[in-house]
Amino acid sequence: MEPLRVAVVGASGYTGAEFLRLARLHPALSLTRLCAESKAGLPLSEVLPPFHGIDLPPLVRFDAADVAAHADFAVLGLPHGAAQDATAELLAAGVRVVDMSADHRFSDPDEFARIYGPHRHPANLAETVYGLPELNRERLRTTRLAGCAGCYPTSVVLAVTPALEADLLATREVIADSKSGVSGAGRTPGAGTHFPETAEGLHAYKTFDHRHAPEISRALGGLKVRFTPHLVPMNRGILSTVYLRLRSGIDLATVRAAYERRYAHEPFVRVLPAAVHPDTRHVRGSNLCHLGLFVEDDLLCVQTVIDNLTKGAAGQALQCLNLMAGLPETTGLDHTALFP
Amino acid sequence: MEPLRVAVVGASGYTGAEFLRLARLHPALSLTRLCAESKAGLPLSEVLPPFHGIDLPPLVRFDAADVAAHADFAVLGLPHGAAQDATAELLAAGVRVVDMSADHRFSDPDEFARIYGPHRHPANLAETVYGLPELNRERLRTTRLAGCAGCYPTSVVLAVTPALEADLLATREVIADSKSGVSGAGRTPGAGTHFPETAEGLHAYKTFDHRHAPEISRALGGLKVRFTPHLVPMNRGILSTVYLRLRSGIDLATVRAAYERRYAHEPFVRVLPAAVHPDTRHVRGSNLCHLGLFVEDDLLCVQTVIDNLTKGAAGQALQCLNLMAGLPETTGLDHTALFP
Amino acid sequence: MEPLRVAVVGASGYTGAEFLRLARLHPALSLTRLCAESKAGLPLSEVLPPFHGIDLPPLVRFDAADVAAHADFAVLGLPHGAAQDATAELLAAGVRVVDMSADHRFSDPDEFARIYGPHRHPANLAETVYGLPELNRERLRTTRLAGCAGCYPTSVVLAVTPALEADLLATREVIADSKSGVSGAGRTPGAGTHFPETAEGLHAYKTFDHRHAPEISRALGGLKVRFTPHLVPMNRGILSTVYLRLRSGIDLATVRAAYERRYAHEPFVRVLPAAVHPDTRHVRGSNLCHLGLFVEDDLLCVQTVIDNLTKGAAGQALQCLNLMAGLPETTGLDHTALFP
Amino acid sequence: MEPLRVAVVGASGYTGAEFLRLARLHPALSLTRLCAESKAGLPLSEVLPPFHGIDLPPLVRFDAADVAAHADFAVLGLPHGAAQDATAELLAAGVRVVDMSADHRFSDPDEFARIYGPHRHPANLAETVYGLPELNRERLRTTRLAGCAGCYPTSVVLAVTPALEADLLATREVIADSKSGVSGAGRTPGAGTHFPETAEGLHAYKTFDHRHAPEISRALGGLKVRFTPHLVPMNRGILSTVYLRLRSGIDLATVRAAYERRYAHEPFVRVLPAAVHPDTRHVRGSNLCHLGLFVEDDLLCVQTVIDNLTKGAAGQALQCLNLMAGLPETTGLDHTALFP
Repeated sequence: MEPLRVAVVGASGYTGAEFLRLARLHPALSLTRLCAESKAGLPLSEVLPPFHGIDLPPLVRFDAADVAAHADFAVLGLPHGAAQDATAELLAAGVRVVDMSADHRFSDPDEFARIYGPHRHPANLAETVYGLPELNRERLRTTRLAGCAGCYPTSVVLAVTPALEADLLATREVIADSKSGVSGAGRTPGAGTHFPETAEGLHAYKTFDHRHAPEISRALGGLKVRFTPHLVPMNRGILSTVYLRLRSGIDLATVRAAYERRYAHEPFVRVLPAAVHPDTRHVRGSNLCHLGLFVEDDLLCVQTVIDNLTKGAAGQALQCLNLMAGLPETTGLDHTALFP
Repeated sequence: MEPLRVAVVGASGYTGAEFLRLARLHPALSLTRLCAESKAGLPLSEVLPPFHGIDLPPLVRFDAADVAAHADFAVLGLPHGAAQDATAELLAAGVRVVDMSADHRFSDPDEFARIYGPHRHPANLAETVYGLPELNRERLRTTRLAGCAGCYPTSVVLAVTPALEADLLATREVIADSKSGVSGAGRTPGAGTHFPETAEGLHAYKTFDHRHAPEISRALGGLKVRFTPHLVPMNRGILSTVYLRLRSGIDLATVRAAYERRYAHEPFVRVLPAAVHPDTRHVRGSNLCHLGLFVEDDLLCVQTVIDNLTKGAAGQALQCLNLMAGLPETTGLDHTALFP
Repeated sequence: MEPLRVAVVGASGYTGAEFLRLARLHPALSLTRLCAESKAGLPLSEVLPPFHGIDLPPLVRFDAADVAAHADFAVLGLPHGAAQDATAELLAAGVRVVDMSADHRFSDPDEFARIYGPHRHPANLAETVYGLPELNRERLRTTRLAGCAGCYPTSVVLAVTPALEADLLATREVIADSKSGVSGAGRTPGAGTHFPETAEGLHAYKTFDHRHAPEISRALGGLKVRFTPHLVPMNRGILSTVYLRLRSGIDLATVRAAYERRYAHEPFVRVLPAAVHPDTRHVRGSNLCHLGLFVEDDLLCVQTVIDNLTKGAAGQALQCLNLMAGLPETTGLDHTALFP
Repeated sequence: MEPLRVAVVGASGYTGAEFLRLARLHPALSLTRLCAESKAGLPLSEVLPPFHGIDLPPLVRFDAADVAAHADFAVLGLPHGAAQDATAELLAAGVRVVDMSADHRFSDPDEFARIYGPHRHPANLAETVYGLPELNRERLRTTRLAGCAGCYPTSVVLAVTPALEADLLATREVIADSKSGVSGAGRTPGAGTHFPETAEGLHAYKTFDHRHAPEISRALGGLKVRFTPHLVPMNRGILSTVYLRLRSGIDLATVRAAYERRYAHEPFVRVLPAAVHPDTRHVRGSNLCHLGLFVEDDLLCVQTVIDNLTKGAAGQALQCLNLMAGLPETTGLDHTALFP
C-alpha cells in the first residue's frame, strides 16, 4: 500500500513535535514536509534536539502549493489564529486538514467570534468536524477538515458524555475542576511558565473565564460548564475532577453500568475498577484516557486523566487522521505510558 | 520576662521539625526537651540534618514527669493515635498541650470513635479546644489542651466560614476539591510517596472517603462536605478550590464585602484583590492563608492556599501556643514565604 | 517468520515494566510469559497501571520449565542476587538469558565476589558476555547469556572508550561525576527516595565507594575510575560528566575526529555538534546516547546522557536480544524521546 | 539603638526579594526605600505576591539623593552592568553599598574588562572588597563597598580554601563540577528556564566557559579552575563537587583536620561528619554551607552545598552588611532550612 503522505505545519512547537514522535513509528505514514515559521531553515536537531541524527525532512517555510504537491494530509500545530489562513489555502489546494489549534472547533461563526473574535474563513467552519472520535467517529471518516478537540475539553467531555447520554443527571450543569501540566501552555516562555515561578507551587487561573468552557458546553449539548483550570508543576498530563448531580435513585452501580456500556468498544477509554483513582502518570505519552467513578448521595464525581499532548492534541490528531484516511483507528497509537 | 519552656514530643517528623524551625526564632520561647521514639538517642543532626551544628537539646525518650519538670507546654508531633496517652500523662503532670495530631480535634467521643475508633481518654475530649484561632481564639487562651485543626480542614474552613456566617448560602453543602503537596503524607516512606511514583503525576485519593471530611463538617456546623483530596508533585502547600451555592441575589461584591469584613483583623488571612488567584508558592514557609473569590451566576468558588506544615500544622500550633501563653498571637510567626 | 517467544522474569519492577513497554511495540517479538515473585497472581493492571486493558499474559510465579516450554529467551528484571539461580535454571532448560541485574557483568568469579560476594553459579560467569553492544557486538550474537551493562557504566564507558582506543589519554585515570534520576534506585520505597526527601534537593552518595566503579574499570581495561554518583530530582536520565587528561598536543579537533569516527556507525550513539551540551530530556524514553565534547588545555570533558531505564537497562536488553536472535539490532528501538 | 536604615535597589528580582525576606526579620534593620526599574509604581504585592498585606515601603524609581536622605546602606539586586552607575552615585552621596551583582567582584579594572567589558567607574574597583566574609572579614568591616561573591564562587571557594591554605595540594588546579537550581538564572523568563524545558531534565552549560571561573580563580590566588556548571530541576540550591590532587602522604584524616580547624569558628560553614554527604535541601533558605570530604588515593573530593539565593546572594549580602555596620555578623541570619 502507498504510504499516507503527511505534512506537519508548525512542527517546532510541542504539539507538532509530539506528532512527529508518533508519526515516525506509524507503519503507514510518511512525513513528507515539515513547516515552521521563524525556525524554518534551522537544523531540525537545533529546534528539536530529540531528533538529532534522525532522518526527517528539513524545516521549511509553509507554502500551500508545495505541501499539496507532496502531501495528502496536513496536520497543523500552529498557534491559535494562525491556522485559519493555512487551512483555507490547504483545502483550496486539495489537502485534507487536521487542525490541532482552536481555530476550527466550532461550526457556528458567531459562536466562534464571541470567544476568539471573527474568523477569517467562516465558510470553513460549516464543514469542520469536531475532532473527538468518541463523539464524531463517522463524520470524521469523510470530512476534509477536523478541528481537534482541546486538551481540557477532551478530558471533560469524555467524563460527562455517558452520564448525559444515559439521562442520569438531575441538573444541566457540570463543575469541572481541571488540573494541567505546564506543556499545555505551549513552548513560548513567559513569566507564568518560568521554572522558578512554577515548580513547587500550584494555582488556579482564569476561573470561570477560560475559552475552553464554551467549547466543552458546545460538545455537551449546551450544558452549563463551571470550569476552573489549575497549573500543576509537571510537564504533561491533565486530570479533570468533574462533579455532576444525579437524578434521584441513581446509584454508583447504575452509573458504572452506563459508563462501561458507553466505552465498551472505545479503544482508548478505560473505565477503571471501582475505587481505583486514575493518575496522569499512567497515561503519559499514550493516547489513553483512564476514568474513575465515585458517588456520594446524589453527587457524582468523575475523574479522567489524559496526556495533554497525546490524547489532548497530537495523538488525537493522528486518531482523526487514521479515520479520515480509512486506516484502522488505532494504527500507530498503541503506545503505553512512559512509566515512571 | 521568663521564656516559655516548651517541649516537643515527636520531634523527628515533618511537623515536629517545622515547629523546631519556627520555635528557634521565637523571641520568648525556650526549647527545653525534644522527645522521639525510635530516633531517641541519635544525634539530632542525623535525624534532622538541617540542624547540624545548631544548639538544641538532644533527642530523648518521652517521659511525662521529665517533661513536666522542664516545660510548661508540650507540642505533640506524634502519629495519629500515639498522642492520646502522651496527652493524658502530660495533662496529669500539669503540662498544657498543643496536639498537632488528629487525636483531639473532636469534643464528642462517639463522633471521634466513628472516624478514628475509640479514644483511650475520652474525658480529655470534653475539654479540648479545636485549634483554629480564627474560629476559637478566646477559648484557646484558657484551655489546657488544643487539638490543632488538620491541614485540609484549615484550608476549607477558612474558605467557607465567612459565607456561612454571613448567611450567603442557598444550600448546606460544600464541594471541596483540595490539592496537597506530599509532605502532608508524613515522613514514613511508602509506595504512594516513592519519588518515581509521585513526580510528574497527579491523582486524587480517598474520594468522598477521607477522615478530614467529618472534621470539616463539624467545624462548619454540620455542613455536608463533598471532599476530594489530590496529591500534587511538590513538597509543601495546599490549595483548596471550594464550590458553594449562593442565595438568590448575592453577587461577587456582596461576597467580597463579607469576606473582607470577616478577615479584616485576622493577622494571617489575606483576601486577595479581585481576579487574583492565590498560589501555594506565595505562602510557603509562612503562616499565611491567601484567599481568592470568584462567582459565576449562583456559584461561588473560593480558593485558599496555605503551607500544610506551617498554617496547616506547626505554625498553627505556635499560634495556639501564643494564645494559650498570653503572648501576642503573631510572635515568632512573621515569616514571609520562601520565594521562589 | 515465527515471532521470537520471550519471557520477562521480574516484570513488576521498573526495568521489567520498561521492557514490556518496548517489547509490546516490537514487530517480531511475542511476550509469552510474565513472571513475578510477591506480585504473582495479582492483575497486571494493579501492579502496573499503565497496562490496564492492554492484552498481556498474567503475572505468574517463575518456573524454569514452564518458561522453557513457552519461550526461547528470558529477560531478567530481578533484584541483584536473585538472578543467579534463575539464570542457571533457565540456561539448563535451554533458554537463552538477557540479565538486566548486576549478577552477570563480570567474567571472573573472584572479581565478582570482591564486589558482590560469592556467586552461586560461577561457571556461568565464564560464558557471560558483557551486554554493551558498542563494545561486544559480535560476541553477543552467539552467547547464551548476556549480562547487561549497568546504567552508570553505560554512560561512562561510552564517554571514555573512543579516547582510550585512540590513545588520546595521558593518564590511566577517569573522574566520572555522574548524576541520575531516581528511578535508578528501583521501585522499592525507602527513606532516600521518599518524595519530600528527594524533590527540591540534590546530593552525592557513595562517593568513591559505588559498586559500579569496578564495573566501569573492568570495561575500560583497568582504568582507575574515580566515581561520584549524584541523585537528581527527576524520574529518568543519567548525565555523566567525565574528565580525562589528554596527551600533549591533542586538541579538541583531534578528539572530535576520534569520537566521530568511533561512533560513525553506531545506531544509538550521537556525537553532538561542537559546543552543544547533551540534555537527559532529549533522550528520555529512547535508546539513544547523546555525547558532547569540551576541552580546556589538557583536560577533556565528555558529557553523555542516556535514559537509565532504556539505554541503561531495558532498551539495552532488547538491543542485546536482537543481536542474540539474529534480528536487525535496532528493531523495536526506534523511539525518540518523550519531549517535553 | 537606632535601627540601621537600609535601601534595596532592584527589589523585584529574586536576590532583592530574598533580601527583603531576611531583612524583615532582622531586629536592628529598617527597610526605608525599595527601588525598582520597570516595576516602580506597581503595588509590591503584585510584583512580589508573598508580601501581600505586609508592611513595606512602596516600589519607587531609584534616585541616589533620595536614597541618601533615607538610608545609610544600600543593597543592590540589579542585573550585572546596571549596578555600576548606581554604586557610583550612591557612594558619592555618602551611602555605603553592598552589591549583589557581578559588577564589583574584581579590584583590577583590566581583569574586570576581560570578563565583563570595560567598567564605567574603574576607580570604585580599587576600593571594593570581595564580599566573602570567610576570606575578607576584617576588610569588610571598614569598606564603603562590598562586591558580594557569586553563588557558584562561594560554593567552590569555601570548598578549596582550607586545602590551599594548609598546603595540601599537589597541583594548582581544581576541577569544579557544580550543579545549580534554576533561580540562579534570575527572574527573566527565557527558553532555557521555561518549565517544560527544565523539569525532568539535566544538562551542563558553558562548560569551561563560564564567567564565574575567573572569579573563583582570583579568589583562590590564581588556581587554575576547570568549571562545569549544570542546571538542575529545582528552584534553589548549589552543590559543588570539587576535585583536588593531594600531595603525597596526605590522607583523609589530615584533610579533615585542616578543614575542621579552618572552619572551627566560622558561624555559617559546617564540616559534616566522615562519610556524610551534604544535600542542598538541608540548607535551603538558610545562610549555611554544609561541606563533606572524601579521599581516594591522592584525589580529594570536597562537596559543598549552599542556597544560591541566601549564602549565594542575599544572606551573604546581609552578612557583609552586618560586618560593615559593626553588628554581630550572624544577626538576622539564624534561620535553619525549610525542610522538607
